Parts: sequence; C-alpha cells; structure tokens
Amino acid sequence: MGATEPRAFEGILEHHLAELGAGPKVPVMMCGMVGSRQGWQEAPYVEVPARLETIIERALPVSGTPREVRILPGIADRSVETPDVMRSEETQLLGLGRMAGNGAEGLVCMPGTHAKWVLMDEGATQVSGFATALTGDLFAALSRGSVLRHSLSGDAGLDGASFDKAVRAAIDEPARMLMRLFAIRSRALLHGADAAHASASLSGTIIGQDIAGALARFGKPERLTLVGGGTLGALYARALDLVGIATDVFDGEELARAGLFAAAVRVWPDMFATAPPATAANP
Amino acid sequence: MGATEPRAFEGILEHHLAELGAGPKVPVMMCGMVGSRQGWQEAPYVEVPARLETIIERALPVSGTPREVRILPGIADRSVETPDVMRSEETQLLGLGRMAGNGAEGLVCMPGTHAKWVLMDEGATQVSGFATALTGDLFAALSRGSVLRHSLSGDAGLDGASFDKAVRAAIDEPARMLMRLFAIRSRALLHGADAAHASASLSGTIIGQDIAGALARFGKPERLTLVGGGTLGALYARALDLVGIATDVFDGEELARAGLFAAAVRVWPDMFATAPPATAANP
Repeated sequence: MGATEPRAFEGILEHHLAELGAGPKVPVMMCGMVGSRQGWQEAPYVEVPARLETIIERALPVSGTPREVRILPGIADRSVETPDVMRSEETQLLGLGRMAGNGAEGLVCMPGTHAKWVLMDEGATQVSGFATALTGDLFAALSRGSVLRHSLSGDAGLDGASFDKAVRAAIDEPARMLMRLFAIRSRALLHGADAAHASASLSGTIIGQDIAGALARFGKPERLTLVGGGTLGALYARALDLVGIATDVFDGEELARAGLFAAAVRVWPDMFATAPPATAANP
Repeated sequence: MGATEPRAFEGILEHHLAELGAGPKVPVMMCGMVGSRQGWQEAPYVEVPARLETIIERALPVSGTPREVRILPGIADRSVETPDVMRSEETQLLGLGRMAGNGAEGLVCMPGTHAKWVLMDEGATQVSGFATALTGDLFAALSRGSVLRHSLSGDAGLDGASFDKAVRAAIDEPARMLMRLFAIRSRALLHGADAAHASASLSGTIIGQDIAGALARFGKPERLTLVGGGTLGALYARALDLVGIATDVFDGEELARAGLFAAAVRVWPDMFATAPPATAANP
C-alpha cells in the first residue's frame, strides 16, 4: 500500500468494479490497510474493549468520490504494556459473530504473517483484548535469511513426527527456542536429517512458541475458534490438539465477506436487507 | 569457504605468509571452517566429553604442501536430543584454559552469530557439553527481513532502559517472545517509539531469550566466563548482571591466538618452546 498514491485508489477500485459489472449506485464497504495512514484515507482505530457494532458505526465515508465508499476501522490496544493493532481481522471477527453467534466467545486464533490471538466476550460481540505474534514473518525471515536456509527446501512434505516433537518442546520449554533453532542445522550436519525434517521442525518450533505465548497471555481454554481453513490452519489445529485444545475452524475469506456484508447491511439497509451473504458476496 | 577450491587454499595462505615475511620453515596452525567439509581438508570432530589436549593431538596434518600446516578439529555432540557442532571456539577454549587455568571451569558464554554456551570441567581442561543458539543470526534475519526493519535504523545509540526491560521480560516469560517482537512495531506505530528503542528492544529480547535458554539447559551459575570484549560482550555482561550473574571477560581474538600458540608449542616444541604467546602471535 505504501506505493499507492491516495489519488490512485479510486481508479483501481472503479477498474475492478467495472470488471464485475457493478453500476455507479452500488456502495462499497472496505477494510484493512486501505484505512491505514499509508492507505486511501485513514480510519482511526477503535480502542479495546471494542464492540464490533462500534466498528460499523465508525465506518469512514471516503470523501471526494461520487460512489458511496466506506472503510471499516481497525482496533488498537494503546496500553503501555501490551500495545497492539489490527486492521482487517476485526472484520473477520464481525463475520464470525454473525456466523457462530455466542459460540465464538472466548479465544480466537488467527494464524498468519502476524498471527492474532483475540479474546471475544459479551456473547462474541466485543473484543476485550488481543495480541499479535511475529509468527509467519519470523518463519519467512529465518527461512530466507539465516543459516537454516541451507537445510530447507521449497516443497518438502510434512514430516508429522518432527512437527509434533518441535511443538511439544516449544510448549514444554519455550526458553530454549534459540538453541532448538540451531539444532535443526546440527541435525542436518551430524545425522543427515533432510529438508522435510528441517521444515517441519522450524514450523513446529515457531507455531509451538506462538501457542505457548498465547497460553501465557490468555490462559488455556478447552476449546477455541481457529480462523484458517488452509494448510496453515491445519498445522495449528494439529498443534493445538497436541496440547489438548479442541478447535472450531472457520475460513478467513468467508468470514471477511460475512463481516463486510454485515456492515453493508447495517449502513445501507435499503440496498442489502434481504439478500443472503453468499449471494451478495459472489455477484 | 564454500566458494574456495581446495587447491586454492595453499596459494592464499602462502600469499599472507609472504606479506608477513614468514620463511618456508615456519609451521602454521589453523582452526575453524578451514577444517570443515567445505574447507581445505576435513578435520573430523572430537566428540564430547572432549579433552582440549585431544584437540591438539588430533590436529590434522595438511597433505601435499611442502610447509608444515595443521588444522585443529572442532567438537561435536552427536546425541539425538542435543546434537551440536563447533569449529574455532574449541581453540578459544584452549587459550582460555591457558590464560585462566582452573578459573575458567564452569559455564562459558561466547556471544555471536551462533552463540555458544559451553560447560568446562576437569579444571577447565575438558568440554563436557555445549549448546549453540541462533542469536545473532536471528537478530540479523529479523532486522533485514521482517516488518521490524521499518522500525530500526542503522546506528541508533543504546537505549539502556528499553534493553534492560526487554531482557527481564524475556527471562521472566520466554514463552511470549513472538508477541514481544511484534509489540516493538506496535510501540512505534501507537506511541511513536523511536529506532533506538526498537533496536534496544530487539537486542534485549533476543539476548534475554538466549540467556533464558542457557539457564534452562545448564542451570544458573553465580559467575561465568564471557568471551567477548566488544560491544556485544558489553551487552551480554549487562544482561547477565541484571539476572545476578557476574562475568569474567576475555577477548575472543586474544584467546584464539593463545589457543593456536599453545597447540603449536605442543606440536612443534623445538620451534616455539620459549617464546611468550604475545610475541609469537604478533610477529
């Protein structure tokens, strides 16, 4: 987003809408980095505890466009001890509240480059706290930029036993993370461990450390909501199962569409009141 | 070393020796990656528990050169649980034994790209165990390749309070490392924290995690030997002091010279028997 001039956003949006055949009266609800300081227009963060209805109420009307366009704000924790920010996950959480109702109350795990752990309360209508971990970003930085790059290869299959062992070790003794990372290299040198082992160990070490951090911060639930239907979500489900936490899995893109639609219905009731999410989201 | 052909090593060595005015009878003792599989000739690892005298006894005579050249082997831990390797630190430890005697018994901290934590016993004549942490490599990978690069600048001075706080947090609660890493970015976004803060926090988080790992693996000593006279050594001394561990500091290059000289005296007693290390090491 840093490279897009504010004036260019409208042209890009109109180009995509024209391809979809959307007329000039169709309003647009957006979320994510488009509302950041480097985006189209800045939608100021809502602060925790953040009611999800407040996210919708503060949807920023973009100025200077003939079309109705709004940007949903993100959420911030401005405390000194645990400062944190999210943009776009709040919209997925809005969708989650619509799709799962009360069932989404409690801890929500949202894996990714910057994994979010979110505590939902008040019947899953409010975000009371959250924390971001440098999970995927760390994995990528180590894969590309450390000595471990020599031990990894692009498309190794999952070595499940190595993944499980690394997850357990990270959760049992998170202090030893830096030593376990180097041991991935040593096992390749001394024991001829292959790329599938290295990749699974690195993945398990980092995901295990992420989970250990969440348990230290939010306590250990019996069950949590996992936002991630793909490969990464499956790894988290497996790792969480290892420590005795059951998961209800939702697909992140579906949740984002449901959240955007819920916001649109509230902001423009005459346009969307009766159409179901799936139809509206896939015109 | 990976790019140097075995045949090229001799020419490079002779070029440097000619610049020093060393005649063809001067023998050469080497250590480090020159003895690895990708080096000049492979000097097989000595295994833990490793007597430092054994390192000297197994100094590999390089074949095919008119000059007497030997390469000191590294040390390996081939166990399944804590596999590990070192090349060159064993030579520093040899020098440490010569310079500090019994005083070097116990835990030795050797900061760096791949930081070593070494347990010396038998009057500091033997390495009974060691562990390598991905410390400096992780710092570099995150500085260059993660979202934190936006918050860091090259030459920020040390923000001591931020460093100390990060060290304490890492040691008190190592599980939360990935969240604290992202919080460095959040503090820059929300509270305007500057590059000096980000750099000190990243450094303190990683050094603190390294120390936490060593304490978990080797227990907490009252005092340890720190090999590192420079800026990084000073950061480790400061961090160790925060957790109540006193340090005896030695310079790594001095130790390497003392170790190489001690080995040379043993292997070629007629050449070096009476010269003191400082003179011989700085011809």
